Amino acid sequence: MGIEGLMEDDLLIQMIDQVTDSTVGLLSEASEHIIRSGGKRTRPKIALLAYEASGGTIPDETIPAAAAIELIHTASLVHDDINDRSDLRRGQTTINARWGNAAALLTGDFLFCKAMKLVARQDPRIIEVLADTCIRIVEGETRQLLSLENLEIDEDTYLEIVRQKTASLFAASAQIGGILAGAPEAQVRALEEYGLNLGVAFQIRDDMLDFLGRPEELGKPIGTDLRQKKMSLALVDALHRSAGKIGQGLFDDVGSVIQFLQETGSLEYARDKSCAYADQAKEALAILPNSPARAQLFQLADFAAERDR
Amino acid sequence: MGIEGLMEDDLLIQMIDQVTDSTVGLLSEASEHIIRSGGKRTRPKIALLAYEASGGTIPDETIPAAAAIELIHTASLVHDDINDRSDLRRGQTTINARWGNAAALLTGDFLFCKAMKLVARQDPRIIEVLADTCIRIVEGETRQLLSLENLEIDEDTYLEIVRQKTASLFAASAQIGGILAGAPEAQVRALEEYGLNLGVAFQIRDDMLDFLGRPEELGKPIGTDLRQKKMSLALVDALHRSAGKIGQGLFDDVGSVIQFLQETGSLEYARDKSCAYADQAKEALAILPNSPARAQLFQLADFAAERDR
Repeated sequence: MGIEGLMEDDLLIQMIDQVTDSTVGLLSEASEHIIRSGGKRTRPKIALLAYEASGGTIPDETIPAAAAIELIHTASLVHDDINDRSDLRRGQTTINARWGNAAALLTGDFLFCKAMKLVARQDPRIIEVLADTCIRIVEGETRQLLSLENLEIDEDTYLEIVRQKTASLFAASAQIGGILAGAPEAQVRALEEYGLNLGVAFQIRDDMLDFLGRPEELGKPIGTDLRQKKMSLALVDALHRSAGKIGQGLFDDVGSVIQFLQETGSLEYARDKSCAYADQAKEALAILPNSPARAQLFQLADFAAERDR
Repeated sequence: MGIEGLMEDDLLIQMIDQVTDSTVGLLSEASEHIIRSGGKRTRPKIALLAYEASGGTIPDETIPAAAAIELIHTASLVHDDINDRSDLRRGQTTINARWGNAAALLTGDFLFCKAMKLVARQDPRIIEVLADTCIRIVEGETRQLLSLENLEIDEDTYLEIVRQKTASLFAASAQIGGILAGAPEAQVRALEEYGLNLGVAFQIRDDMLDFLGRPEELGKPIGTDLRQKKMSLALVDALHRSAGKIGQGLFDDVGSVIQFLQETGSLEYARDKSCAYADQAKEALAILPNSPARAQLFQLADFAAERDR
């Protein structure tokens, strides 16, 4: 992202640190714990690049909204970790594991409220986009919860859950960058389309890394999602191809699942789909003028589909 | 509140029903379950009366913000019930007891996001007041969590927790009524002061009802807070007076706690304090012109301090 991007990243973290300060030590500490544990800050980067690709010239203008986006993302991770009973995230103890479920629930709420506070005086369109996005994330998470261990889930349902729980926030990030730059409606919609497709590519790849990644890069053991009985595109496809033949005990052994996915060609299928979504993301940006920022948005789409971490 | 107030209440519930509709059935059902379980709608009523007492003439203008306030209150109850492991609320099964903790966590998030959506296009001051209030609620709940079973908590700390977790939303409700009516800053601040004092009176009384109320009116058994090791003003006072003599096993038996509180005169003390806060609430309204709405705000303050349910 170059030096400018790095400076923006520092300002972003500064603003998040500032805003998550609290007279209640536990809330500051737990917030700092998860914020400092890393993360790729992909969503704020997308907001900044979308802003620049739309002709925005004062990058600092994006920081409050970008910080709100990162806080919303973080709040949803904190609540997910409670529901998933996860102990590790980004190689660190989760908030629920370290401070207990009750404190983690309140920390997630706190981060979410701080996001609301950050955008209170922004363009109402931005507040509305974020509110709608938060609702979609919660709806996606709830649908996922209701379909845990459901071996009959079809590809459309899987993709709709992914769009809601993950891609919607990528879409909002890109869209908000455009709104902040004062881009015309058609460009804002193109950016939304970009973010939505990139987000689907990102999540399909994320699900594959649960089988194929390296624990030290994932920050958690292999097969974590599988043990939590979450479906992935490869699994949905493999079960469809094998007409549900493998069912009993599917979630017990990561090794045999990987073998199953290789035999059915479903890993290859998921890889192709992820790349196809990245391509669609890039195509959506055709109406934006050529610029270094647009080129970086292209790179981000490719990275989302092919990354190893 | 008269017929007009009743009509507003219908419109409020209509708007909440509409906004909590979701393609995810569980979220609609769980939201409807808690919204329909009753509740006194005290906070929306305060917003409406504050609006009218400030000269506002189009009561329907208050409905989106009032609905958001009620949703924030409801979201915080849903999350509290998870953390408190409560089974009953308003005489009904809690969401966590009926649908499980994970679904309840997401329902609380959902209600909160819907509140944000409802105010996205309101006056930015309203969004900011609500965001700040949500943060205070979470901070108060967290401090309460951290001081559960702490027999050495002093009155100031207890009152600060009450101001944060409860009174802040009453203050916001009154304040928002004033903002919506375009009241001058001094009146808005007087309304905030009214709400804050009324909220403290309300919570002191609420804590007393845990000992003194009738289960069929409370919608939950007597001593529920006590078993969850929550402090109340009467207990704080009694422990202070008895120099912590009673400690071990304090939370085990409601009967002997009530006897202890009567012997120390602490129930009387808490009752007096609650009434004193209600009086302060009314005094704060002295700068508002006399009106039927202001008279109703006075009545609400007295009710908060003396109610049996």
